[in-house]
Amino acid sequence: MKLKPEQTSFHAHHSPMGAYATLTFGMFGASGGLAAEAALPGEGGLSVGFIDSDGVINELPLLGIQEDDRSSYVDQIEEGAAKETHRLIPAAEIKRTYDWATDRFEAGNLKIEIINPFYSLPDPACSSYEDQRRASCPAGFIRLSFDNRSGSEDTTVFCGFPLKQRERWRLFESDGMVGGIHRDSMGFATCESAKPFVHWSIEDALRFPNEADPFLLGDTAGLLFDVAAGRTGEFLIAYGFYLGGNVTYGKPMKYWYSRYFQSVENVLGYALEHAEYYLDEAVARDRELHVAELSDAQKFLIAHATHSYYGSTQWFDDGGKPRWVVNEGEFRMMNTFDLTVDMLFYEMRFNPWTVRNVLEQFVAEYSYYDELFLPDHPGKMYPGGLTFTHDMGVANHFTPDGQSSYEVKGLDRECFSFMSCEQLTNWICCAGVYFAQTDDFQFLEKHRQVLLECFASLLNRDNPNPEKRNGIMAFESSKTWPGGEITTYDSLDHSLGQSRGNTYLAGKSWASYLALNHLFKQLGMADEADEAYVAAERCAATLVAAYDDQLGFIPAVLERGNESAIIPAIEGLIFPHEMGLEAMVSFNGPFSDYIYTLQKHLLNILKTGVCLYEDGGWKLSSTADNSWMSKIGLCQYVARQVLNISVDPRSDEAHMDWQVKGSAAYACSDQFVSGKARGSCYYPRIVTNILWLDEQCGTCGKANKVSEEQMR
Amino acid sequence: MKLKPEQTSFHAHHSPMGAYATLTFGMFGASGGLAAEAALPGEGGLSVGFIDSDGVINELPLLGIQEDDRSSYVDQIEEGAAKETHRLIPAAEIKRTYDWATDRFEAGNLKIEIINPFYSLPDPACSSYEDQRRASCPAGFIRLSFDNRSGSEDTTVFCGFPLKQRERWRLFESDGMVGGIHRDSMGFATCESAKPFVHWSIEDALRFPNEADPFLLGDTAGLLFDVAAGRTGEFLIAYGFYLGGNVTYGKPMKYWYSRYFQSVENVLGYALEHAEYYLDEAVARDRELHVAELSDAQKFLIAHATHSYYGSTQWFDDGGKPRWVVNEGEFRMMNTFDLTVDMLFYEMRFNPWTVRNVLEQFVAEYSYYDELFLPDHPGKMYPGGLTFTHDMGVANHFTPDGQSSYEVKGLDRECFSFMSCEQLTNWICCAGVYFAQTDDFQFLEKHRQVLLECFASLLNRDNPNPEKRNGIMAFESSKTWPGGEITTYDSLDHSLGQSRGNTYLAGKSWASYLALNHLFKQLGMADEADEAYVAAERCAATLVAAYDDQLGFIPAVLERGNESAIIPAIEGLIFPHEMGLEAMVSFNGPFSDYIYTLQKHLLNILKTGVCLYEDGGWKLSSTADNSWMSKIGLCQYVARQVLNISVDPRSDEAHMDWQVKGSAAYACSDQFVSGKARGSCYYPRIVTNILWLDEQCGTCGKANKVSEEQMR
Repeated sequence: MKLKPEQTSFHAHHSPMGAYATLTFGMFGASGGLAAEAALPGEGGLSVGFIDSDGVINELPLLGIQEDDRSSYVDQIEEGAAKETHRLIPAAEIKRTYDWATDRFEAGNLKIEIINPFYSLPDPACSSYEDQRRASCPAGFIRLSFDNRSGSEDTTVFCGFPLKQRERWRLFESDGMVGGIHRDSMGFATCESAKPFVHWSIEDALRFPNEADPFLLGDTAGLLFDVAAGRTGEFLIAYGFYLGGNVTYGKPMKYWYSRYFQSVENVLGYALEHAEYYLDEAVARDRELHVAELSDAQKFLIAHATHSYYGSTQWFDDGGKPRWVVNEGEFRMMNTFDLTVDMLFYEMRFNPWTVRNVLEQFVAEYSYYDELFLPDHPGKMYPGGLTFTHDMGVANHFTPDGQSSYEVKGLDRECFSFMSCEQLTNWICCAGVYFAQTDDFQFLEKHRQVLLECFASLLNRDNPNPEKRNGIMAFESSKTWPGGEITTYDSLDHSLGQSRGNTYLAGKSWASYLALNHLFKQLGMADEADEAYVAAERCAATLVAAYDDQLGFIPAVLERGNESAIIPAIEGLIFPHEMGLEAMVSFNGPFSDYIYTLQKHLLNILKTGVCLYEDGGWKLSSTADNSWMSKIGLCQYVARQVLNISVDPRSDEAHMDWQVKGSAAYACSDQFVSGKARGSCYYPRIVTNILWLDEQCGTCGKANKVSEEQMR
Repeated sequence: MKLKPEQTSFHAHHSPMGAYATLTFGMFGASGGLAAEAALPGEGGLSVGFIDSDGVINELPLLGIQEDDRSSYVDQIEEGAAKETHRLIPAAEIKRTYDWATDRFEAGNLKIEIINPFYSLPDPACSSYEDQRRASCPAGFIRLSFDNRSGSEDTTVFCGFPLKQRERWRLFESDGMVGGIHRDSMGFATCESAKPFVHWSIEDALRFPNEADPFLLGDTAGLLFDVAAGRTGEFLIAYGFYLGGNVTYGKPMKYWYSRYFQSVENVLGYALEHAEYYLDEAVARDRELHVAELSDAQKFLIAHATHSYYGSTQWFDDGGKPRWVVNEGEFRMMNTFDLTVDMLFYEMRFNPWTVRNVLEQFVAEYSYYDELFLPDHPGKMYPGGLTFTHDMGVANHFTPDGQSSYEVKGLDRECFSFMSCEQLTNWICCAGVYFAQTDDFQFLEKHRQVLLECFASLLNRDNPNPEKRNGIMAFESSKTWPGGEITTYDSLDHSLGQSRGNTYLAGKSWASYLALNHLFKQLGMADEADEAYVAAERCAATLVAAYDDQLGFIPAVLERGNESAIIPAIEGLIFPHEMGLEAMVSFNGPFSDYIYTLQKHLLNILKTGVCLYEDGGWKLSSTADNSWMSKIGLCQYVARQVLNISVDPRSDEAHMDWQVKGSAAYACSDQFVSGKARGSCYYPRIVTNILWLDEQCGTCGKANKVSEEQMR
């Protein structure tokens, strides 16, 4: 959609799928640029513009405005004509259109589009070599155009890629392509008629006597294109990445694309050769979002989330087998499970096989068994059970089996403690949704024993003594001894941060029991199914009973007089809903009390000063000034689709503002403190909002599939 | 030598040979740390200290003092007891001893030594697998000790390696070692009894409940050692590097060490297993410098230069053949020829084969043919000849054959112009010294034609018309058309920066002709030898005639009334001297006029305000406030050894101060503006001062070889 003038300046990932690589730019005057495996935007940028009839360089402000590194070579930089012939195009003259797969900047006769096709990654288990090759190709496209129809002189347009200072390029020309490559790991190329350059900047490239004579000490390489007077020039450039060989540590793996490509030249050549296919896919995605009956702000949030998601994805070749990893944005933790469970909906829509892949990684490598204790009587250990680690490593360093990079023993409900109970519910809920949407019985059969162990483990965390269970976690993992577990909301206060007695986690426990009920039924295990159902009833009953009429909501933590109000009490409803267990989330179903209670809960807390900010943005907890965009997207969907609660569209505008202003420098972020990104920047998790695409319209509750007609 | 208290805080490389890798630290409170292929000190450091009887962490200030990255994970950092239990040891309590291969810090009972053994790299053409393996092993050592003999309680000492923020570690334990590894590319290990840790800092590692429980989100990994009360603990740690696979671009090559090692664990294991051998080598080098009859400042400068030199060296495996590359410090240009010719003396002492190796790279790949023109009549081209590029690439990007990364066409005597004439003299002079000191007739025979072409090319640059020659460059390379060439002194004014008519370059032309004379004689080419000798005479005669009695020196540039005085007019004398052509540089020899003239020249300009700074430091040109340590070292040796001119030892003190204060953050640097490092930081070239080791004492002129007795 077209962005308002005050909303045009923010960074966005522009990434291929599964390559953990990006061309990040869009915040005017801020650095970014090509980068692989980076936690945050880089120190380069994009140098795009044209030379006007006065010889002035007109450049979009898509790179960091900073001194170049010339001064270390030369005593004194000559100031002079050059400075006066270089004009950064002011923001007011720039129009930006931000679609699902295309980011477009227009200024006068200049237009640049960055195009990142995405689509369902074909399951490696059952697709062709060519399909795999095409889907894994780590490239994106830039379409640069200049309308010189009213011009009386030929002009030059340029597209350059500044790197971090002191990084260098080589130029290449082969197979009808010309381009530049940095460290054999990233580069760009075109098949059009173009003059390549390398210099410190476009300004220097044009100022030096031999215009495009490569000066290989420069950190900016790029292409110059001529546009004749009276004509329009349109030029397609591919940019791409290639990290060959083992790129992970602890467990050595390669990128999946390295099965199909031998070099970055190879990647670029393939991308350009198959450009039509890729550009068509991008058009299809753009149109798909365009025609959805959602507000512009909602469409923006979906598009922005998607851009950041792919920027964090890694599709590995683990000794011939595919392995899917999503990095945790700026934190770079790998397959953080409490992100996986949120990105589930996106991946189920596009690549269900990645969900199975990650779940099986957790079972095979990143699970562990613990014991349990009661915090008030830490002296005695009780049987615990199977559960899963928080993550699988960090910054390409896989942790040893059964360990995460994040979790530290012995902490009491503070950041970096264990999330044993929550990760257990995450595995169960993901497995439930995965099976319900795929009917993958093979998966189910294979993990029959895991499901049984998960069930036992979850029950024990309520209470190892069946007589004393109330459906809600009360026992702590021995990993935390003598402390206590936390939830994914690790940087919030206890209202969402602590696990035991937590209403948010209780909701996911309820969902887990229902998922187990469903899965056991499918496996023909009627007794276990019944037992799981009873557990769900127990949990719901406790939660219903915990509703405090005086407060008007269920307190966040069911202990010690806690009085916080939290939106994510409703979060667990998403799982039975997505599993198609509509009866379970119906106002007329067996859990109607629970559903009515949560409706009441949410209606009462969605108030400014409680769980709404002044700008209409959602505040996850009444007692913490810290809100997470991924969870908001999910809970808004639950509110509309399950609880029949309209959502004020002002919130979408607010959330869009948080992203484009509060997180301008960090692309799409998750965690916001009073509308400013803080931690969880450059993050993949926000794609929970893919759920909105299933809604008839943005604020009411009916399923919507885009019709064929609308697509045309 | 022991450093004075005010000279202890400066960075130094601590590097293995040929791995382009370093552990840089030493400037208190400044960041640095482990790094591979880095242009400047990194963003990590070294965390070394002990815990005193009050539980206070006492740490040397060997890392950057900055906020950690905790704030992005946790809302609020708890301030408290921890802060008060951490003490950075003040500089006043730290003693530093800086030897050739050992850098030692002592504070109270704590001592840490960083040991970097170096010695002659065995010629791969004729040495054993084991010798090659040992020499290429990319590791260094840390010896950490604590004297707890008077202590009544056990204590803990620690050695940690902070990385750049967001970089991560994995721990390992195997083959009796325990240690940490980052990205499979660098790490540390010990065979002693130690507890490894990973955390944000040593403080955090000790504060968290499970002391050494690895927290893999931390950027600091390290080792904790116990020292019992009443005992002294001494612990040996190896640190090492490993970049596997192709590491260069344009021309793919691996590190030579990857022929002998499979991983960084493998490197560390080997280093620890062979520690005795390595430590003995380090002791031998330390002693060698220690007993030399040089001042402490001179010894310091040699040691410091050597540390930085190895930090820039790359020993590659080019498809099975060794390839030697020295990077140009912060600029990372590869085998910059005008550095090669200065580092020649160091390499001839230690690894003559690397000189041959580099010379042959230039012949086979980095040479070109040009034409020539007279700047006043640029319309006409004359025959030119063979010459060599400025460098072979930058930042591991090899340039295409015949091209450098630095040189840009069409510039007129400004930075980044061509150095065609100077690089030609560099090849000839290097070849002359190489042959004279090795008697490698095979090399000579192989390059007979190259020598002939070099001779013709050098003559043409004087004047293509033999009748009009005066021995000095007057014709410009067509590469610069319609501009002009520069010398290695690219950031100085024309006194040293321009090539034609330049007294510095003329001195090297004279030396080149003498070298050719000698080489042609060896090849039995009497006519060519004679012709070369005549050319040398012609050159010397012109220079002698150019001596200006009124000025009291030979002007820097023999055109347009230049009146600059330059020290490097004497630089060329080094080559015949090092070739053993003593008669040629004798006051009684055939060039006595020239030698006397240069003696007079130098005596007259070595004056404060002309070519001396106030502090006694040398100023290469009277008209530029820009002095290069490598050239000073060389010219001081020439002054003493050839021109019999005493050098005021105050200059050595000044130059040491330039390095330890003016370049504290950049280890050893070359270029200084009024005593402050500016450009050419973190540089390898300063090893010209290895020449001093051949002197009887620091200020007078007799050859000195350290006797066996002195060594003991």
